[in-house]
Amino acid sequence: MVNNNKELPQTSKSAVLEKVLDLEIKQTPLSQLKANEVMIKIMAVGICGSDVHYYDQGRIGDFRVEKPLIMGHESTGQIIAVGDDVKDFQIGDRVAIEPGIPCGKCEFCRTGRYNLCPKIKFMATPPYDGDLTQYITYPADFIYHIPDNMSYEIGTLSEPFSVSIHAAQLMDIQPGTTVFISGAGPVGLLAIFAAQAFKAGKIIISDAEDSRLKIAKKFGADFTINVTNTDIKTETQKLTNGQGVDYVMEASGNNKAESESLLTLKSGGKIAYIGMPAHDTAPLDIMFMTTHEPQIFGVFRYANTYPLAISILQQKKEIAESLLTDFYSLDESQEAFERNKNSKGESLKIIIYPNEKLRNK
Amino acid sequence: MVNNNKELPQTSKSAVLEKVLDLEIKQTPLSQLKANEVMIKIMAVGICGSDVHYYDQGRIGDFRVEKPLIMGHESTGQIIAVGDDVKDFQIGDRVAIEPGIPCGKCEFCRTGRYNLCPKIKFMATPPYDGDLTQYITYPADFIYHIPDNMSYEIGTLSEPFSVSIHAAQLMDIQPGTTVFISGAGPVGLLAIFAAQAFKAGKIIISDAEDSRLKIAKKFGADFTINVTNTDIKTETQKLTNGQGVDYVMEASGNNKAESESLLTLKSGGKIAYIGMPAHDTAPLDIMFMTTHEPQIFGVFRYANTYPLAISILQQKKEIAESLLTDFYSLDESQEAFERNKNSKGESLKIIIYPNEKLRNK
Amino acid sequence: MVNNNKELPQTSKSAVLEKVLDLEIKQTPLSQLKANEVMIKIMAVGICGSDVHYYDQGRIGDFRVEKPLIMGHESTGQIIAVGDDVKDFQIGDRVAIEPGIPCGKCEFCRTGRYNLCPKIKFMATPPYDGDLTQYITYPADFIYHIPDNMSYEIGTLSEPFSVSIHAAQLMDIQPGTTVFISGAGPVGLLAIFAAQAFKAGKIIISDAEDSRLKIAKKFGADFTINVTNTDIKTETQKLTNGQGVDYVMEASGNNKAESESLLTLKSGGKIAYIGMPAHDTAPLDIMFMTTHEPQIFGVFRYANTYPLAISILQQKKEIAESLLTDFYSLDESQEAFERNKNSKGESLKIIIYPNEKLRNK
Amino acid sequence: MVNNNKELPQTSKSAVLEKVLDLEIKQTPLSQLKANEVMIKIMAVGICGSDVHYYDQGRIGDFRVEKPLIMGHESTGQIIAVGDDVKDFQIGDRVAIEPGIPCGKCEFCRTGRYNLCPKIKFMATPPYDGDLTQYITYPADFIYHIPDNMSYEIGTLSEPFSVSIHAAQLMDIQPGTTVFISGAGPVGLLAIFAAQAFKAGKIIISDAEDSRLKIAKKFGADFTINVTNTDIKTETQKLTNGQGVDYVMEASGNNKAESESLLTLKSGGKIAYIGMPAHDTAPLDIMFMTTHEPQIFGVFRYANTYPLAISILQQKKEIAESLLTDFYSLDESQEAFERNKNSKGESLKIIIYPNEKLRNK
Repeated sequence: MVNNNKELPQTSKSAVLEKVLDLEIKQTPLSQLKANEVMIKIMAVGICGSDVHYYDQGRIGDFRVEKPLIMGHESTGQIIAVGDDVKDFQIGDRVAIEPGIPCGKCEFCRTGRYNLCPKIKFMATPPYDGDLTQYITYPADFIYHIPDNMSYEIGTLSEPFSVSIHAAQLMDIQPGTTVFISGAGPVGLLAIFAAQAFKAGKIIISDAEDSRLKIAKKFGADFTINVTNTDIKTETQKLTNGQGVDYVMEASGNNKAESESLLTLKSGGKIAYIGMPAHDTAPLDIMFMTTHEPQIFGVFRYANTYPLAISILQQKKEIAESLLTDFYSLDESQEAFERNKNSKGESLKIIIYPNEKLRNK
Repeated sequence: MVNNNKELPQTSKSAVLEKVLDLEIKQTPLSQLKANEVMIKIMAVGICGSDVHYYDQGRIGDFRVEKPLIMGHESTGQIIAVGDDVKDFQIGDRVAIEPGIPCGKCEFCRTGRYNLCPKIKFMATPPYDGDLTQYITYPADFIYHIPDNMSYEIGTLSEPFSVSIHAAQLMDIQPGTTVFISGAGPVGLLAIFAAQAFKAGKIIISDAEDSRLKIAKKFGADFTINVTNTDIKTETQKLTNGQGVDYVMEASGNNKAESESLLTLKSGGKIAYIGMPAHDTAPLDIMFMTTHEPQIFGVFRYANTYPLAISILQQKKEIAESLLTDFYSLDESQEAFERNKNSKGESLKIIIYPNEKLRNK
Repeated sequence: MVNNNKELPQTSKSAVLEKVLDLEIKQTPLSQLKANEVMIKIMAVGICGSDVHYYDQGRIGDFRVEKPLIMGHESTGQIIAVGDDVKDFQIGDRVAIEPGIPCGKCEFCRTGRYNLCPKIKFMATPPYDGDLTQYITYPADFIYHIPDNMSYEIGTLSEPFSVSIHAAQLMDIQPGTTVFISGAGPVGLLAIFAAQAFKAGKIIISDAEDSRLKIAKKFGADFTINVTNTDIKTETQKLTNGQGVDYVMEASGNNKAESESLLTLKSGGKIAYIGMPAHDTAPLDIMFMTTHEPQIFGVFRYANTYPLAISILQQKKEIAESLLTDFYSLDESQEAFERNKNSKGESLKIIIYPNEKLRNK
Repeated sequence: MVNNNKELPQTSKSAVLEKVLDLEIKQTPLSQLKANEVMIKIMAVGICGSDVHYYDQGRIGDFRVEKPLIMGHESTGQIIAVGDDVKDFQIGDRVAIEPGIPCGKCEFCRTGRYNLCPKIKFMATPPYDGDLTQYITYPADFIYHIPDNMSYEIGTLSEPFSVSIHAAQLMDIQPGTTVFISGAGPVGLLAIFAAQAFKAGKIIISDAEDSRLKIAKKFGADFTINVTNTDIKTETQKLTNGQGVDYVMEASGNNKAESESLLTLKSGGKIAYIGMPAHDTAPLDIMFMTTHEPQIFGVFRYANTYPLAISILQQKKEIAESLLTDFYSLDESQEAFERNKNSKGESLKIIIYPNEKLRNK
């Protein structure tokens, strides 16, 4: 079945979450390459808040880690084998990997919302393994070429970036409008690019850390708000002549921010929740709902975003470098997770290399 | 200016909210008829939760009653004089009155969302007087003919009905889908008609009162849930083969219902809040937002709904009669407000007659 | 692989278009049942304008009949075998068959527009065989249960009906509006149900035959126009107080109607072409486009329509009976095609029975 | 009524179309300033294809010049007096003038499509005078500040630019897509900015003149096609890997281009007609409509576009200078119209100065 490579790996070294706070490095089996699949040598994996959430808590909502699980789902790699039916990829191609494989047949898949497919196999979401591992076999339908002059590390950002692109699509952000992004972590910073892609006229971003707000400026934010000393409603009103903003992307996951960012909207405005929430509920100002007619968008992952994500990252790759702050080998995975868990203010995106380590800090 | 009627009334007897819990009947001045206006003899006025909220609390959100205010905004009447520039109406015409007059020029007005106009003059919302009064002068642009064989009382339902039509339009309810309505008061019952107008395939409604659920059946609900003994999420799952509902209209204003009705949605579903909220905030399940991608619609009044509302009520008028439970003269207005305030379970829509009393209970 | 039926048919008797005007009845091979498939005994097949177009001309647009082709794509049947992975169907189930199988992976499939999939295998469209045959094997994902008390003949209407449902979805028909349907053949008559499903307030239909207009009335049209003696623009203006209609579904395929029905629209109105065009081009009034801002929708088959189509047909099945005018056995297929070709005025929908003949004219 | 300027002009020198091909310069009366109006000294007027169409033919569609008509509707100027109720403007302000005043009350106005208002008073469209004149009084609701460092000439481009912004809004152009613009005259060139504003990923433009295509490159087109030697369908297929383009804006008004540009679309693509058509009809490929499901958008002027148009022109003003090719005084108006009529290849946008001549060629 495999066309031109006799000596493919049979197992792969992986970072496996054995139980809460216990990430072990082990050899794991590698499934046989099918006709519609490629085998990929994973070159870089970004660590996401949700990975660390599983590591730290063992669950997200109804998803519970009940058996050992390979972590990782923000990845790029190089193709080392190609199934017989695959036409668009060759050995040596550099690719980004979309980490969810929907069923393709259910109501959600058929109507273009495959992210909501109840049978989607999404990496590092129980019970599906992730790709913080040396090699994977994967359907060619969910991989995408990255440009020769885009680094593997930048390529991994396609995944977290996709969330804000999806949010912008759901809200249908219009040119010339004002977008407020709450939170300047990796997701919030990438949301600046999404707002720009939809040609927002004015971008405002908030965070508690000036260092992050400084990076946000570099990313293209027009105005920044440090929430430790400024009220976001007062400040956004000031920046919009008392009108309120047209769109909000809440990327902090902070409860107070989740509640208060709604109030920065003008009448009829829209807000999308794209952060990993810190708690299960947040107080919703129902009186504001009833008198200002806002629309609130839940956002679960993304659909049909990778080509646009890669093309924007290609244009912004020099700026996006500021996101990449920490680099680890596969053997250092637990250390990387601990770093993410403990130093939120300093580190932004942490990269792990399952094969050669390409960068040092 | 007035074309063919010399002896128009110069004042009007009105129900005026003097202060909290004090509704007085007084003569109030009547403004001069302008060229684009008509003078209307008010024949029936429905009492709305918001009227009673002002009566009881003196405020709704940021709107505060700071000087005496004529109540009432769900009205029909007969034209008794016509301004010189008015073409589509004549003396004797029977009409429903849309109670908000937007500026027509701001960003919201120009883009078709005139309900969000910050300068809208909306009846019985401070500082604008309502029409629980014998006569008003009013711009002809915001009145609508009602059919000869539609009663004035049924005609007043155009206003509360408009809210659910607007919600259905905002959510873009599609044919063949399932709609869950939370709360079977006047707004929730009329929402059944709205769901039908948008050709929902299945309509489920909940309430704590069996008497109301019985009326809901008559209105066209396919399934009813009594929340005193049944969990709405469990039951709606059962009624949808475990899928969840496509749309929710939350019409109860009850905090628990506001939170829990969100959870009855299938992934990607939509909910609109159309009830008068009992509290300022309700807990929002942010984890559900993040994993099920629902959309939440605030609803503030309505725009462009009256012609459709009247045409549907004309078809449903016999059924809609069940909504009309209590009838008072203008002089009995305070009694009517007290009745609304105290007997929610029994009475549904209360009608006050500023002129002749057309019905007795 | 087949779970519980040892004696399945190995070949099937089929109506094969050998060349233009030559439809032969032959035994054709039957493919092996796969795990995700069912085997269906075809009980009724409706004949469509496109079938006859291939029969008569050998091509539609770029689709050319270059080798013998089994005709037929409007079908219902009974399941006689079930593949191992199929969960929702059992032997004996009565089903309607959606005749196109999209790839599930391309840009169009992923964004919910699978009817535009360039790899779709659509029955009786070269080079894919149809199901005017005794038995087929077919993926369970594209079949749908029909109610016990819905006849197989009515069930076949799901296919031609789907086109107008899809058109109504594309145009997003709103409640209370006016829809003009041009042409009262099977597609146009079923479009009345689609307009009703989207709760059009007023339905106008035109045709050259009074007999068809009479049926249209029965189907629910509010007004009819006989185009042999009445101008559609003049008449629709009259029926809409000089406003023009909100939506048009052009179902006649007649060139003059294609051009002129555009002009019946009000400013900003929408028209969908759902008929099989008689010629390659029709004159487009570009000056009307530039001064009235209409939107024109091409319509190619349908997507995600079968459940709604079946549910509406179930409600309308008695009325829909008027559509079924001619009944043939498989051996009489060529006669049936000639009937369709030659007597457009009299016959509406022709049914062929690949197995038992269930009705006689 | 006028607050602080005693010596306002009582008449204004205007370019009046007396009859076909006869444009005379005359003193015309100036209406009294109303409370909601400003008086504007017109500083620059761009000449549009429609102006010249009236000059040359006496009519556009149903609009006929039946009495002398002041030409001009692409204008900027300086405020010289302010009505009592006007709050947002002061004497000396530099403004662009949106040339249509809708009724604000009809169905179209109330639903956000005020460009379709049947009572709109649109400049230089019979029977409403234009503003190729020294002074006008005008409602403050339809004027917009232009930045201090934007020239009056560039400001006039807000009007022709608005058409493509409106088209992009109607089609809802999505980021990362391919837009083909047919025709590189002023409207087509400005459409490049509109495509960029909606963040098209790839912009292709065609014309018969290499000189215009060269300017198109400067404006930001990625690819150009000279239609004298290249087929647009073949070439756009080549530039899109055989996919076809996502969106077309047809800006040439040429019949062949109107028909053929439709065929450059991918399945499900959208085309808007934004040019002034040279003939009343163009052949519509109805078979393409039926097999590729495109959507065609008529475009009539614009609504709610000026703020975005001005903000984009401010960013692009240096590039936009290439559009300004010819400059005339008011007395030379007929010469300017003849220039537009006769030298389409060479001249692009012609500016007339009703007051001081600010530039020479």
